[in-house]
Amino acid sequence: MRATVIHAPHDIRVEDVPDPVVRFPTDAVVRVLRACICGSDLWAYRGESAREPGQRIGHEFLGVVEEAGAEVNGFLAGDLVVAPFVWSDGNCEYCAEGLQTSCPQGGFWGSVGSDGGQGEAVRVPFADGTLVKLPAAAASDDHLLTALLALSDVLGTGHHAAVGAGVKRGSTVAVVGDGAVGLCGVLAAKRLGAERIIALGRHQVRTDIARTFGATDVVAERGEAAVDAVRELTRGQGAHAVIEAVGTEQSMRTAVEITRDGGAVGYVGVPHGSGTGLDLSVMFDRNIALRGGVAPVRAYIPELLPDVLSGAVDPSPVFDLTVGIDGVPGGYKAMDDRTALKVLIKP
Amino acid sequence: MRATVIHAPHDIRVEDVPDPVVRFPTDAVVRVLRACICGSDLWAYRGESAREPGQRIGHEFLGVVEEAGAEVNGFLAGDLVVAPFVWSDGNCEYCAEGLQTSCPQGGFWGSVGSDGGQGEAVRVPFADGTLVKLPAAAASDDHLLTALLALSDVLGTGHHAAVGAGVKRGSTVAVVGDGAVGLCGVLAAKRLGAERIIALGRHQVRTDIARTFGATDVVAERGEAAVDAVRELTRGQGAHAVIEAVGTEQSMRTAVEITRDGGAVGYVGVPHGSGTGLDLSVMFDRNIALRGGVAPVRAYIPELLPDVLSGAVDPSPVFDLTVGIDGVPGGYKAMDDRTALKVLIKP
Repeated sequence: MRATVIHAPHDIRVEDVPDPVVRFPTDAVVRVLRACICGSDLWAYRGESAREPGQRIGHEFLGVVEEAGAEVNGFLAGDLVVAPFVWSDGNCEYCAEGLQTSCPQGGFWGSVGSDGGQGEAVRVPFADGTLVKLPAAAASDDHLLTALLALSDVLGTGHHAAVGAGVKRGSTVAVVGDGAVGLCGVLAAKRLGAERIIALGRHQVRTDIARTFGATDVVAERGEAAVDAVRELTRGQGAHAVIEAVGTEQSMRTAVEITRDGGAVGYVGVPHGSGTGLDLSVMFDRNIALRGGVAPVRAYIPELLPDVLSGAVDPSPVFDLTVGIDGVPGGYKAMDDRTALKVLIKP
Repeated sequence: MRATVIHAPHDIRVEDVPDPVVRFPTDAVVRVLRACICGSDLWAYRGESAREPGQRIGHEFLGVVEEAGAEVNGFLAGDLVVAPFVWSDGNCEYCAEGLQTSCPQGGFWGSVGSDGGQGEAVRVPFADGTLVKLPAAAASDDHLLTALLALSDVLGTGHHAAVGAGVKRGSTVAVVGDGAVGLCGVLAAKRLGAERIIALGRHQVRTDIARTFGATDVVAERGEAAVDAVRELTRGQGAHAVIEAVGTEQSMRTAVEITRDGGAVGYVGVPHGSGTGLDLSVMFDRNIALRGGVAPVRAYIPELLPDVLSGAVDPSPVFDLTVGIDGVPGGYKAMDDRTALKVLIKP
């Protein structure tokens, strides 16, 4: 099959690789219908996260079960399924608690020896614990299929940030980061009943999507000016709940500064300097909490799925460029250049 | 009156100062029956927190109302009262939410121009918002009076840490710090229903108190060895809820490392390097939350008071040395040398 391989920073190729097969009886093989490129893939693309040359890449996909191992009980060949960005056994203490990202047998697509999502098919370990079934009818609904793909990462990750930030009915929420996760954070905050949602971002195409998703205010400034603007919108206090969806020192610093005393920063931006942006003295004096991390998306899919199926929540606008499998390297470049927000792959 | 004054690091004196008077109609003057020295006072004593020469010091006291301003409605001369370590107006949005430490009109005892707790009397701003009445009978019960003094800071601060760490019925809790706050954290965790409480500490006198307060296990190791010991006690996982009651880089690092995936660090140690001990990548991968800060003790006193009055919660063992007002400088030295855990002052 054809799959995406990373050889070095900025060296993404689509190559012929061995077809995946059921290796363990709990495996399934999924033929990919939709995949995409994540903002976090860019850390590897830019060489800021280490990869071994030849590693697969991509961790978001949905598709059709092609073969299920003898011990897979929940899926049959032909089932339409979505995969979260981490596989998990579904049996351990952490899986039972909904923290599948801490499953001792879990792992990330594209880690050494594993298939990545940006290919024609994927061997899925622990299929019963990992995959979630989708209605068969969705397979013929192009728009819905794209929306459902967001369940594999960005929508669940935005939701995790909103939960971490403590968004509830009536909250004032601020979102730092205008990438797909930040935008899904807006969507999730709206879904959880936020009354006011302030989106921070300079790119009008993106902030326009934020408004569609429920943002009531947009702050285009950065750094101290952004902090001042948010404070002005919130009677000098800041937002109850702040979503940090970038991961840099500056974004975390801004997030802390715009949080209201007693509020929380829900962070899902993979840390690339963001630890340095945490001013603990400020957080201490103002009782600002920090909660988040790698999102246990598998736990959230059952909760979010009905709203995506009904159309009440539609994250599909975050995908603004579609490519075939051979267009993946160009897709990375487009996202790195910020000419694309999030690239959809139809292998 | 006589009051404690800090002139420079290690230069604590007891001096004659002007008697406090009602300056604003919302003030009260309280004659101090009991005060004490806080571990956090040592940051000033050691020169690690800046003070202007001549500032008063001390922020924990209880006593009898001597005079109440014309607009004070809740207190009369003769009332027995306890003061939290921050005064607050009782009227603002933050006070209403129970975050009195963020009251815009609030302040700390001993800040420039204000009385400190380690003196014979204190002018209390916003008496109605700040003070909490105690049963008159307590005034003649020496043991109870000492226990009630802990409501001014350490018991409420330990409770804040336990709440921040998310302690609930059945939790496994670990406590980093064997000072009075850490020990009160043990007490608070026990009160909230923790099933297992692991106290980290090397001083047997203190860990013996921890056991009296409800600790089920004691870990005397430090650093990596302490982490290994806690993991061994928790099936390799760590504790659901970790109380960080020190504030240094090492204590925070240990706290994060011994937290179970998905758990939280409740931190109340005034940050003195602890920000550097936060490894955000570890916290991200393991979904470890951080929640705490300066404790809104005023909000907790009404909840904790009945249990102190009934004797169900007795924090008095944290006071292991009693001095009169002239003994305060020696009390600082004893706490700095760690020959005393917490010094009680009977002015």
